Amino acid sequence: MGVLFKQMAVVGVGLIGGSLSKAVKERNLVGEILGVGRNEERLKRAKEQSIIDKYSACVDETLGEADLVVVATPVGMIVDQIRELIPCLKKGCIITDVGSVKKKLVQDVEKYMPESLHFVGGHPIAGTENSGFEASFSTLFEGRKCILTPVETTNPHAVEKVKELWSRVGATVVCMDGDEHDEVLAAVSHLPHIIAYSLVNSLLEIEGFEETILSFAAGGFKDFTRIAASHPEMWRDIAIMNKEKLLSAINLFQAYLDELKEAIAGEDTKKLFSEFQKSRRFRRSMQ
Amino acid sequence: MGVLFKQMAVVGVGLIGGSLSKAVKERNLVGEILGVGRNEERLKRAKEQSIIDKYSACVDETLGEADLVVVATPVGMIVDQIRELIPCLKKGCIITDVGSVKKKLVQDVEKYMPESLHFVGGHPIAGTENSGFEASFSTLFEGRKCILTPVETTNPHAVEKVKELWSRVGATVVCMDGDEHDEVLAAVSHLPHIIAYSLVNSLLEIEGFEETILSFAAGGFKDFTRIAASHPEMWRDIAIMNKEKLLSAINLFQAYLDELKEAIAGEDTKKLFSEFQKSRRFRRSMQ
Repeated sequence: MGVLFKQMAVVGVGLIGGSLSKAVKERNLVGEILGVGRNEERLKRAKEQSIIDKYSACVDETLGEADLVVVATPVGMIVDQIRELIPCLKKGCIITDVGSVKKKLVQDVEKYMPESLHFVGGHPIAGTENSGFEASFSTLFEGRKCILTPVETTNPHAVEKVKELWSRVGATVVCMDGDEHDEVLAAVSHLPHIIAYSLVNSLLEIEGFEETILSFAAGGFKDFTRIAASHPEMWRDIAIMNKEKLLSAINLFQAYLDELKEAIAGEDTKKLFSEFQKSRRFRRSMQ
Repeated sequence: MGVLFKQMAVVGVGLIGGSLSKAVKERNLVGEILGVGRNEERLKRAKEQSIIDKYSACVDETLGEADLVVVATPVGMIVDQIRELIPCLKKGCIITDVGSVKKKLVQDVEKYMPESLHFVGGHPIAGTENSGFEASFSTLFEGRKCILTPVETTNPHAVEKVKELWSRVGATVVCMDGDEHDEVLAAVSHLPHIIAYSLVNSLLEIEGFEETILSFAAGGFKDFTRIAASHPEMWRDIAIMNKEKLLSAINLFQAYLDELKEAIAGEDTKKLFSEFQKSRRFRRSMQ
């Protein structure tokens, strides 16, 4: 099989951008990789590490050769970033992103996308609590899901090409509506992160927590702190961009917690047992 | 060093009781181990696996030789179990337990403890989401904390002996007030479990969760399900026995979550960023 793209430009060479570059290189999926970013020093280091082949610290005509642009900046910057890129791209270029929130982002991008370019919203569900290309690795997407959120007007050929890119780096690609994506992610990812942040930060309010109480923590609490160590800028953006779905998910969680609290206060042994058993059964059915 | 006890009786040969027996055997800390329980078939199997040396399916004079009794039944049964044991024990026998809640349990046990016997409340902070002696292993307590909660009248020699037992199976032993124990554990263990149960069960209320949505879950959500798979009977008992402290901890968490929710609804980017950064800093200081 030949290459999928002659030149892939990666805008934002961080954990996701760096890992995609490594994965794509390992499998010879593109002719060359252009890294685009604001910090020339970091781009230089990424090139020295052969994560990218060349780089540009400005969004300018250097981008005119790319037939694929992957925007992997923090999600809150993606819309503006794409708007800035558009005038520099050649006809037929495919643009995709890796943002964790899709509905509004795709709507905003589509508003000013010219007919000569093709945008396909994307979200590889992969990541670690570490950031930066130093933390990147080529197998990050293997066995993971990647969601694409094309709209009615999206070029089907562009969708196929982006689909193939993610498939060939090991991901299972699923297409869905941006709204559905945001609802699903609010449940399985955004809500759990908000809960983990809330647990950790509320405990930090207790006097002497870090000095003494923390030393009695077992595995359960440590699992929470791992999630709560995720990138603050990214999670700030996700929380705001997926506000509506996230608030609904939080409300659902709060209503359940209130119910459980009532069962504890009322010493409702039957209810507590059956609720706790429900979780265990679910976990066991997962394995 | 000679043995610490001539005969250790373990009442409730489950994950904790079984692991303690294995750890004690490996280090020759006691002369022999008597397993006590209700299910003769299971006790027989534990003996076949050399976890215990002999067993008794009744609480009777068989217990008269023990100089240490470790009560490792589900925490809600410990008080009644000890009351039942008392008439069968010889003078000077030390009784300890492994219950996850201490204040009321210790008060209740002390009420009817005769002067001829010595009770030392204990709680090894160790466990897994699996239960039963089949899941037991001799290194479970290594590097873990074990809290003892002696009261003013507790025999200091008995405290020393129980302390030595746990130290020699690898735990770091700390003595504290039962009330303080319950407060600390509510924060680092009981609250996180209630939160994990609430997250998992509230998501299960969403239509299509198990069938489709779940397949998009990443590591974050899976960490929660591990905690929420813990023993339902045990967690029912803990929730009720540590009701007061747990409800306070839930209130603290709920107040924080409300605050965060408000920041999301109001798109307070500064607050969200600084709160998420607080968690990350804390996690990084832990490593």
